[in-house]
Amino acid sequence: MKNEETMLRLKTIDGHLRGVIRMMEEDAYCIDVIRQIQAVQAALNKVSAGILENHLGSCVTTAIRGEDPAERERVLKEITDVFETATKV
Amino acid sequence: MKNEETMLRLKTIDGHLRGVIRMMEEDAYCIDVIRQIQAVQAALNKVSAGILENHLGSCVTTAIRGEDPAERERVLKEITDVFETATKV
Amino acid sequence: MKNEETMLRLKTIDGHLRGVIRMMEEDAYCIDVIRQIQAVQAALNKVSAGILENHLGSCVTTAIRGEDPAERERVLKEITDVFETATKV
Amino acid sequence: MKNEETMLRLKTIDGHLRGVIRMMEEDAYCIDVIRQIQAVQAALNKVSAGILENHLGSCVTTAIRGEDPAERERVLKEITDVFETATKV
Repeated sequence: MKNEETMLRLKTIDGHLRGVIRMMEEDAYCIDVIRQIQAVQAALNKVSAGILENHLGSCVTTAIRGEDPAERERVLKEITDVFETATKV
Repeated sequence: MKNEETMLRLKTIDGHLRGVIRMMEEDAYCIDVIRQIQAVQAALNKVSAGILENHLGSCVTTAIRGEDPAERERVLKEITDVFETATKV
Repeated sequence: MKNEETMLRLKTIDGHLRGVIRMMEEDAYCIDVIRQIQAVQAALNKVSAGILENHLGSCVTTAIRGEDPAERERVLKEITDVFETATKV
Repeated sequence: MKNEETMLRLKTIDGHLRGVIRMMEEDAYCIDVIRQIQAVQAALNKVSAGILENHLGSCVTTAIRGEDPAERERVLKEITDVFETATKV
């Protein structure tokens, strides 16, 4: 996913989220609000995966092909960390 | 969670999400962007739980204490549905 | 989902999990192991949703139709709690 | 996480899961069963993260430092895939 596409998607998701706020203001049915929040979250998951894909193909590849073992370890640790958090949100 | 609190939280989350878009515009580090997206998602989880709590204490309680079995079944089915989706987003 | 079906599903999932342990013993490819663990988790999500469905139609309905407000509150609080945890695992 | 530790953890989780099946057999309270299933899932998340950490430090590092671009792409694609699935289970 290119940066422009990521940004566009995030802006669309932001529009979606503002729609959820309007639903609340108009006293929408609770379950419908929860479903829209879940749709926002699913869309954010896709964006995160796209950003990670970019990151792996750029920074991570550069670090791993580089000669600094501490930097290699750092970038790999970050991947494990966001993976672990991904299982929790 | 009261409706006002929910709305306030959603607006704060929207501010957070717009911050993420700015991070992208300023070419922030990918992992930092992913972490902020995950923070947005965690905050949305809390809002959903708050909305569900309200819904259980109002609409669901009314339906279950009411005399329409189809309505009772409908509200309970919705709870199971959003629970099942919650495990996926 | 009936109790017998839940039990049968859990036993199948347990068989699946023991298969994952065998994969580890036979030095299977890491990503394949992770994918199988994720399949086990998805199956557990379905079982949880089935158990919740049963619970809503039995204990929760009884408590809400009953005359003990503390008991009503307790069962509803539990639903919100497992929902909130569902968003995290 | 070393392979032995992973295996040990998976065996412990399997014991936990068999405990959940026993709870069902003994007609345990639904919510308690769901909570134990969620604990099993949280433990599986930790194991997956440990396996991924190993994989990044071994196979992925070797592939990225290697000279086969298709292989590099393949291993990176797998990381994005399991990350995306992690957000769903």
